[in-house]
Amino acid sequence: MYVSPSYTASYRLLVNEEKIRVADVVAAITGTGAGIKGLDIAEAEAPRIIIDVTCDVRDTEHRRSLAVLLEDLRGITVKSVADQTFLDHVGGKIEITPRTPLRNRDDLSRVYTPGVARVCRSIHDNPSKAHILTMKANTIAVVSDGTAVLGLGDIGPEAALPVMEGKAVLFKHFGGVDAIPVVLDTKDTEEIISIVKAIAPAYGGINLEDISAPRCFEIEERLRKELDIPVFHDDQHGTAIVVLAALLNGLKVTGKKIEDVRIVVSGVGAAGSAIIKLLQAQGAQDIVGYGRDGALSADNTEGMHPSRKWLAENTNPRRVKGSLQEGLKDADVFIGVSQGNILTGDDIAQMAPGAIVFALANPTPEVPPQDAAKTAKIVATGRSDFPNQINNVLAFPGLFRGLLDARVPEITTEVLRVAAEAIAGVIEPEELSENYIIPGVFDDRVARAVSKAVRKSVADFEQIEVVPQIDLGDHTV
Amino acid sequence: MYVSPSYTASYRLLVNEEKIRVADVVAAITGTGAGIKGLDIAEAEAPRIIIDVTCDVRDTEHRRSLAVLLEDLRGITVKSVADQTFLDHVGGKIEITPRTPLRNRDDLSRVYTPGVARVCRSIHDNPSKAHILTMKANTIAVVSDGTAVLGLGDIGPEAALPVMEGKAVLFKHFGGVDAIPVVLDTKDTEEIISIVKAIAPAYGGINLEDISAPRCFEIEERLRKELDIPVFHDDQHGTAIVVLAALLNGLKVTGKKIEDVRIVVSGVGAAGSAIIKLLQAQGAQDIVGYGRDGALSADNTEGMHPSRKWLAENTNPRRVKGSLQEGLKDADVFIGVSQGNILTGDDIAQMAPGAIVFALANPTPEVPPQDAAKTAKIVATGRSDFPNQINNVLAFPGLFRGLLDARVPEITTEVLRVAAEAIAGVIEPEELSENYIIPGVFDDRVARAVSKAVRKSVADFEQIEVVPQIDLGDHTV
Repeated sequence: MYVSPSYTASYRLLVNEEKIRVADVVAAITGTGAGIKGLDIAEAEAPRIIIDVTCDVRDTEHRRSLAVLLEDLRGITVKSVADQTFLDHVGGKIEITPRTPLRNRDDLSRVYTPGVARVCRSIHDNPSKAHILTMKANTIAVVSDGTAVLGLGDIGPEAALPVMEGKAVLFKHFGGVDAIPVVLDTKDTEEIISIVKAIAPAYGGINLEDISAPRCFEIEERLRKELDIPVFHDDQHGTAIVVLAALLNGLKVTGKKIEDVRIVVSGVGAAGSAIIKLLQAQGAQDIVGYGRDGALSADNTEGMHPSRKWLAENTNPRRVKGSLQEGLKDADVFIGVSQGNILTGDDIAQMAPGAIVFALANPTPEVPPQDAAKTAKIVATGRSDFPNQINNVLAFPGLFRGLLDARVPEITTEVLRVAAEAIAGVIEPEELSENYIIPGVFDDRVARAVSKAVRKSVADFEQIEVVPQIDLGDHTV
Repeated sequence: MYVSPSYTASYRLLVNEEKIRVADVVAAITGTGAGIKGLDIAEAEAPRIIIDVTCDVRDTEHRRSLAVLLEDLRGITVKSVADQTFLDHVGGKIEITPRTPLRNRDDLSRVYTPGVARVCRSIHDNPSKAHILTMKANTIAVVSDGTAVLGLGDIGPEAALPVMEGKAVLFKHFGGVDAIPVVLDTKDTEEIISIVKAIAPAYGGINLEDISAPRCFEIEERLRKELDIPVFHDDQHGTAIVVLAALLNGLKVTGKKIEDVRIVVSGVGAAGSAIIKLLQAQGAQDIVGYGRDGALSADNTEGMHPSRKWLAENTNPRRVKGSLQEGLKDADVFIGVSQGNILTGDDIAQMAPGAIVFALANPTPEVPPQDAAKTAKIVATGRSDFPNQINNVLAFPGLFRGLLDARVPEITTEVLRVAAEAIAGVIEPEELSENYIIPGVFDDRVARAVSKAVRKSVADFEQIEVVPQIDLGDHTV
């Protein structure tokens, strides 16, 4: 476990003695492995000095033991300990901001009554104008029931909210998309479907998030059929897009073709099944998916959920049997979206020369990446502290930017595919290397490239007229 | 019909001849009664000149006839006509803005994974922390099914959206409250109740809006019982608060007491019934409500909806019968929340000396205010172009500000009452007059006074600890 900027502790220390040496404080802190980010004198009325120290720690135990250690230093009292991550969350991470000024009665009469009535009537007569004249133009819902949040599992809607708010921050920052968290206090498939349908008029798109499998499949499928706006399940399709993008570049580096490689996928839930389908759409022929009971195969589909049965019948052309470890022998590509530490470096060593390993379980990868790298040519993880981070944020902001701009009613596999190619294409051929197959999350070329590719792929895309002329105001109040 | 800033038209004129006199353009426009707000030369490559003229018009017919008139002027072509109100709506009126910076990987690791997981777990262990650590702290839902929007009636969810967005703008501007429009594609009472309950975890309060009676009564009542956050129906309680505020000051001006006056209320729907109940809570004894069939009375409650039956049985102590016109004889106060032009100045002339008339139907009051003012001492309307505008915006932003700050789980009648007193109290006794019984909508003392009064009225109010100390971070990931 490393110290991490995701866990920054701030200590406020009251120094009671004149002769305390700040250097001793620093030494005590760094001696525990904590990284000091800042040290400020908050007050200095001698002999009383107040010092604020901010440092990255490993975990809660580290933060606590450090407080005890500081308290034990002669002449020092720990006044308070704060957690920067929690401070960042106080009051929530998003707010609603007016886009129109409200300076006087004239403004008020346009933004609200009586002027607004003219806009309402116009939309009533032609509901598609809502895509231009309301928040629907640029707003999507980030919908979750809190059942499969990060690695935390079923933690409920309130506890899922910080993740959905974080997602909204990313949507805005990277894609200029207004995203509203919608956390639902129900796990009932039918109820979730009917709620999302009922609230849909305000939204130009739906991003499903952290809903557990297999319910997420039916919810997504039904909503795609029954709504006339794009429906996306990030855990499935976002992951699939970024995995395909990384794989396309990985194959370039290793000089292999997607049609020829043997691909092993560990984990056949939401992410795994979407990855398999998207790789197939790109031309992959030989994919074997592994669940807890080994290789999925058309030879044994008894009692399977329909979504898994489909996978079993449409993958594994060589009818491979047995365990994941066995399946890795001579495989060209391993993609893990399952759980941490289920493989060793020795398992990876069995793979074919020039192996590509994506160990994406979070926070602990399927195989320690250092161990995998001993034999594999390319290793990628979901973590930010290794090269080649597979992060969904590369996909969803640009994707929805493009979908909203093009105002398409649905997401096709082709859209997912071109989004992946766009991400891969951000890295120039001469820049590609085993440690750089996927752009960084702060690479601002990515969202632009993705949105452009999405717009371009939509054949019937028509530029929306953004300056309304006389036809927009054809109504008296 | 007056020209209005709620209807501002912009004409782009191409002037093809050198000798056109701009003064002729101005004369042509002002000759129709339109008010010119701006005239700009957009381009001037002689002999070609492009002029943008912005002016307030009466209605769509006026805007059109003006375009024709300008087109007929020698040497002028109308290039485009735009409606400023529609331009203000392009792209929607609200956006989602991050409250936390996202500059680098450190920020990302706190706002999103992995740091956010610690916050999620903390809320999972103690859900009430959502009131501090998520958007719930400052966000309410503005919920409508679009069935009773302004004077437009049942126009559906998409068309209702501009009103709900406008409301969100007002909530933020006047109360610092983040409000999210939730428009529902269902009119089913039970479904609306279950949807609002399901989405409630993200919200610190619910503002019901423009839902038609009598469904709005049951929806509100049930949600108040079944949710642990405040539920407010602005069409009922917002209106009631501002009417009571205006009445309190009106009675001061006329030297009467609420216990003594005879009050006639026209309209016993959502607004009327809430007004009656709140005036009673303030001490009013003699209120007669009038529906389409005349005076409500305990003598005849057959076939009535329970909410109306309650009113009939708890008002009209003198068992008055007959029409609204008859009921006005010797009444001290008339409050109209019904429909335009149902009374004349002669009807108002029958009222007692020092009569108070609130003719609140919108956009056309129950009685022409000029006619009412011939005999009534005080006249108020819902319009901004007469004195004494009764506008809900005086109530809801400050009310929810106070409710969120105090984190109260419900709204009591006492809270509504003190909110009304706070609005009334903004006007100093020496400032009061028949033309100034209610503060203006841009009076920034109002929301502060209301929120303060709400906080004060909540007996068990405890200041929320806003700087989380060590107890907020008691979780390892």
